[in-house]
Amino acid sequence: MNMYDLILRKREGGTIDTKEMYDMIVDYTKGRIPDYQMSAFLMAVYFRGLSDPETLDLTMAMAYSGEVLDLSDVGGVTADKHSTGGVGDKTSLVLTPLVASCGVKMAKMSGRGLGHTGGTIDKLESIPGFHTELSMEEFKDNVREHGISLMGQSAKIAPADKLLYALRDVTATVDNISLIASSIMSKKIAAGTDLIVLDVKTGSGAFMKKYEDSMDLASKMAWLGKRAGKNVEYVISNMDQPLGNMVGNALEVKEAIDTLNGKGPEDLRELCICLGSLILTGTGKAESMKKAADMLNDAIESGRAIGKFREFVKAQGGLAEAVNNPEMLPESMLIEPFYATCDGYIKHMDCEKVGLACLILGGGRYTKESVIDLSVGLELKKKVSDEVKEGDVLAYLYANDKEKLEDAREKMAEVYEFSSTPVEKPELIRFISRD
Amino acid sequence: MNMYDLILRKREGGTIDTKEMYDMIVDYTKGRIPDYQMSAFLMAVYFRGLSDPETLDLTMAMAYSGEVLDLSDVGGVTADKHSTGGVGDKTSLVLTPLVASCGVKMAKMSGRGLGHTGGTIDKLESIPGFHTELSMEEFKDNVREHGISLMGQSAKIAPADKLLYALRDVTATVDNISLIASSIMSKKIAAGTDLIVLDVKTGSGAFMKKYEDSMDLASKMAWLGKRAGKNVEYVISNMDQPLGNMVGNALEVKEAIDTLNGKGPEDLRELCICLGSLILTGTGKAESMKKAADMLNDAIESGRAIGKFREFVKAQGGLAEAVNNPEMLPESMLIEPFYATCDGYIKHMDCEKVGLACLILGGGRYTKESVIDLSVGLELKKKVSDEVKEGDVLAYLYANDKEKLEDAREKMAEVYEFSSTPVEKPELIRFISRD
Repeated sequence: MNMYDLILRKREGGTIDTKEMYDMIVDYTKGRIPDYQMSAFLMAVYFRGLSDPETLDLTMAMAYSGEVLDLSDVGGVTADKHSTGGVGDKTSLVLTPLVASCGVKMAKMSGRGLGHTGGTIDKLESIPGFHTELSMEEFKDNVREHGISLMGQSAKIAPADKLLYALRDVTATVDNISLIASSIMSKKIAAGTDLIVLDVKTGSGAFMKKYEDSMDLASKMAWLGKRAGKNVEYVISNMDQPLGNMVGNALEVKEAIDTLNGKGPEDLRELCICLGSLILTGTGKAESMKKAADMLNDAIESGRAIGKFREFVKAQGGLAEAVNNPEMLPESMLIEPFYATCDGYIKHMDCEKVGLACLILGGGRYTKESVIDLSVGLELKKKVSDEVKEGDVLAYLYANDKEKLEDAREKMAEVYEFSSTPVEKPELIRFISRD
Repeated sequence: MNMYDLILRKREGGTIDTKEMYDMIVDYTKGRIPDYQMSAFLMAVYFRGLSDPETLDLTMAMAYSGEVLDLSDVGGVTADKHSTGGVGDKTSLVLTPLVASCGVKMAKMSGRGLGHTGGTIDKLESIPGFHTELSMEEFKDNVREHGISLMGQSAKIAPADKLLYALRDVTATVDNISLIASSIMSKKIAAGTDLIVLDVKTGSGAFMKKYEDSMDLASKMAWLGKRAGKNVEYVISNMDQPLGNMVGNALEVKEAIDTLNGKGPEDLRELCICLGSLILTGTGKAESMKKAADMLNDAIESGRAIGKFREFVKAQGGLAEAVNNPEMLPESMLIEPFYATCDGYIKHMDCEKVGLACLILGGGRYTKESVIDLSVGLELKKKVSDEVKEGDVLAYLYANDKEKLEDAREKMAEVYEFSSTPVEKPELIRFISRD
């Protein structure tokens, strides 16, 4: 295996063989291939693409570059969920206890937020005491005992992906569907669950702005997972506006608790029921999507879902009372309304800018080193298709700093587009891999 | 200037502004931009190309990344020559003293051979004592006093090009015409002569195999030079077969001496007269190409050209008697014939393979660290269009090692293609920038 030859061959549109791809990933992980050759290779991949077999080889080589978790000893069928990231996306907080309360073991590794999108770990850390720095054994023990655990991405899982992603991040080689799919799936395959459910976002707040790209990514990830012996289900869901009404860490935890109590926003519940139904049918816990939805709705109404969430919080060191008393979560000092300046129907929201407003308030990370303010964020009172009058409150800004508040207000002023005629409510779930 | 943004912009087919290009080259030269970002940028350039203004900016930024020689104090008009490299190309050895003997000051920086092509410095070093490691002052003193000097590429000249070329060499980003043109011209512009004459090779033994690519490269280099205030002339010359009959370091010096004595092969003399005429007309020493050729032919016939070569050799520490007695140059122990195995006309020679045969004999470098055997090489007795009978000597192999000799013989067996009907003699000079 000569790295120069691989760069040249990919540059000329040729194919990297299975053994070459594995050797390349092993050698790179061990530091035997310099970054400057790998980044040239990645840029050639950006222009020439990877075939499906090459993408599979890359995925498996990265999955096997570190530990591959064996969850067979936790007892019962296991599932994991991945979202490509969006604004106000607190789905994991609701979905994992909801599904766990129906008997599927949820073993999830999560990341932190960066830029305009939030991360599940940051959100959970707004619960006092909650921590996700578990050893593999603690993680498995929790899954075995409570049917649910969530840990930060372990350095032992797919280290090649970690190195490659860091390089792609600084060499403008992130946005290639094969590279994105292999990055996500290498980690999910190494994480060892039986089933993987994917929530691929599409729209102005998503990484993939176009539906076709989201569909390409989803089907490529599903294919990779299936070739690796995993059961994979997916939805394509709309991210043209934030999911639910709350954006910001503690605010999203509150909304997740509301939803687990049956009092959350309709769109968030709809998506969680849909993803949960895919897990229940995919793992054989339910015969049909309809029956699965009934089970999940019953888990919410009966209080089993919120009970499982409380158990989960407690098991990971969090203050369980905060689940019953969300006012115990971090709260901002300032809550200021943001008014509509005209009459009309909300035609469009620039979802990414809502995420940026939250970032400006201190609720997100500009760089990996940023410290975030868990209490700040936004509460949306109106969303796409809602009719508003001049002076109506469109949103509340939760802040701890007046200057940041004004900057976020300016960003919010760029978010909305109005129409004088009624606007149709956008469809949340654009595609489901099973019916 | 943010390197990430430049990579992304070039990847998307955008334009790098003048100041950005200069800042990028300065920052890279100072080690402030990591190799992995530069190699990703270069690969994006490979796919997207550089516009003419971008290529000019890159060239000038590299030229000014180190010292720019001022030759105004050597007295008189100065010229430099560059060949894109070929097999048996000893043109510089003949051209520089020939033109210097007609009153143009030849100040040339040269490189060493790599792969199947030879280098002027290696060839000259087969003259005992000859050295090219001159200081800038010694170089200029020689040009002032003798009208001719040749030195190795100084580390002070265009250091950015040196760094970038080394990176391109290991990341499969060498063969892009804009990058090649800017690399060559940055060094030539920094070397400070008034006129630059370019010999761009085309054919099976050249870097550029296709005529159109050679023409593109030549016209791009000429444009860059002219924009930098240089007088640039060029020829496109055929490299489908070696130039002259000798291939190998000392063997080529002998052939150059023969040519300066008026007894060399016709093709080599033709090319030297043509390039020399471009220099004499371009510097105003002659009114027309015809008159220039007369001057050059007279310099050969009168002995002034070989006299200048002897003066040049002596000035750089070489054994001047070897010019009169070429048997004092290194000689190989074995000289073995290579026979024709059929009757016919030579239709085609794989010129690169002739260079590889010389490399196999020990006359070239596989890597920059290789030590070369100056005495070995090939003497071609038949070239394209010559009629041969089975058993005729096609070439002699000059060797010091029987095993290498057999390997080189095997390579030579792949060189020739025969035709049963007469073949036209190929045209040596395909294009001249002036008539």
